[in-house]
Amino acid sequence: MKLAVIGIGLIGGSMAIGLKKHYPKMRVFGLDTHAENVQTAKRLGVIETEIKSFSELREMDFVIVSTPVDVCVKILPEVLDNVGTKTLVWDVGSTKEAICQAVSSHPNRAHFLATHPIAGTEFSGASAAFDSLFKGKIQILCEVEKTNTDLLEKAKELFLSLEMDLREMDVLSHDMHIAYVSHLSHISSFMLGKTVMEKEKDEEKIFDLAGSGFESTVRLAKSNPNTWGAIFMQNRKNVVEIVEAYIKNLEQFKNLLVQENMDALHLQMKEINKIKKILNKQNERS
Amino acid sequence: MKLAVIGIGLIGGSMAIGLKKHYPKMRVFGLDTHAENVQTAKRLGVIETEIKSFSELREMDFVIVSTPVDVCVKILPEVLDNVGTKTLVWDVGSTKEAICQAVSSHPNRAHFLATHPIAGTEFSGASAAFDSLFKGKIQILCEVEKTNTDLLEKAKELFLSLEMDLREMDVLSHDMHIAYVSHLSHISSFMLGKTVMEKEKDEEKIFDLAGSGFESTVRLAKSNPNTWGAIFMQNRKNVVEIVEAYIKNLEQFKNLLVQENMDALHLQMKEINKIKKILNKQNERS
Repeated sequence: MKLAVIGIGLIGGSMAIGLKKHYPKMRVFGLDTHAENVQTAKRLGVIETEIKSFSELREMDFVIVSTPVDVCVKILPEVLDNVGTKTLVWDVGSTKEAICQAVSSHPNRAHFLATHPIAGTEFSGASAAFDSLFKGKIQILCEVEKTNTDLLEKAKELFLSLEMDLREMDVLSHDMHIAYVSHLSHISSFMLGKTVMEKEKDEEKIFDLAGSGFESTVRLAKSNPNTWGAIFMQNRKNVVEIVEAYIKNLEQFKNLLVQENMDALHLQMKEINKIKKILNKQNERS
Repeated sequence: MKLAVIGIGLIGGSMAIGLKKHYPKMRVFGLDTHAENVQTAKRLGVIETEIKSFSELREMDFVIVSTPVDVCVKILPEVLDNVGTKTLVWDVGSTKEAICQAVSSHPNRAHFLATHPIAGTEFSGASAAFDSLFKGKIQILCEVEKTNTDLLEKAKELFLSLEMDLREMDVLSHDMHIAYVSHLSHISSFMLGKTVMEKEKDEEKIFDLAGSGFESTVRLAKSNPNTWGAIFMQNRKNVVEIVEAYIKNLEQFKNLLVQENMDALHLQMKEINKIKKILNKQNERS
């Protein structure tokens, strides 16, 4: 079995290592625009062999396109131009509408499966990859009816070997719900980092006064701008809507403070505490 | 040595357990308006004996006032009315101006030390207390010149026994900087929880789509409304200012998306990534 990873980062790299662990005979190839990242990936055993051209994809059984989503939209048609008769290609992007749209009328559309693994860390690049990233995590599959049945079955087998939990979802729902639950968290965190750094010119004060609370809330502000800028931009319709809802809630909360309305403030916070139950249920599952 | 804890929660309770560990002969008393919490505290060994009246404080060497900050402001004068000749009282509130103001002209002001330990979790109550909560954490001391020198030295000895790192700060600076670095994190997290729960009526979707990113960013939304509502309200001048700055940044970010200004978006996120360096330095210290 031959696997190629296009864009050897946290997600593609972790998938390669995880699959290689389960299928020791799998040969892993990699393509990346950053020569240094390719060297790191080879040194760490994330990939074995570098490939330089999409024409080499014809020989692959599996191709993971794990580039930023703006690059994915551009290269995916060309990747599909170069598949062999049994090649399965999947992407791992955090947006699904634009990616599926980019190949909707491609003659090799059936070779492609749109996926979104709900897993990640704030780190990036081949050096951030690790084999168990996907264990117990959800793998979203979109437009499964457009993928060749045999290839879809193979894909499911691979994802299950990584101990992922599969869910099917339509692209529009995916992009809307993921804006709510994931993309907003990243933006709230980036803006928290920005606001604190702007106001707090004295870094010493950040050291002294930042408890673990600040650290966990601002963690996502360390995320890769290439990856996340492209995601926000591609999903901007949904992202703008949810950011507006967030701003509205912040304005309301601020007004309760200005009005010294302690009862309403308290009631609202108590209501929000219900997130505990939701997160606990989530943790019970994993 | 006798220690009394007024408000036996995460902070006061953890301090009591930590100090008891270092001073095994210390006898720990507790006063709390919630009978159930007192029972929990006794059962878990956080306190030994319940006290019911401030008049019993005369016999204490140390008194920790670890109630919500609105309660602290109300009871602190009465607590100081009841100190013995050698009693040291300290509070642990996340706001310092109103608390210091409440006792500024009290005849026993010298028996009081204003502190703010930069430590906590999203859990609350006596059952959340643990002995190592303060290890390696900063303890802010305010208006030290107003505390009796001998009592101040004793206090420092106790905090150092908990392996805390002491910092002196004036009350106005404290309240401003802590709004930036701590209070805003809590509000951004509460509002994230609110926005996601309002938009995402389908809890199953939150389970499926929430990665570890959402979980860490929304963690502080589990915080106790009594504790945090009172803090936001008491520090509302600073809090409103920083929330307004946060909203402004969110508006600007949203506008960059609407204008499809990818370059500016990218540049901004890259700049915010510098928070990594700041947090790393912080972690190196601890």
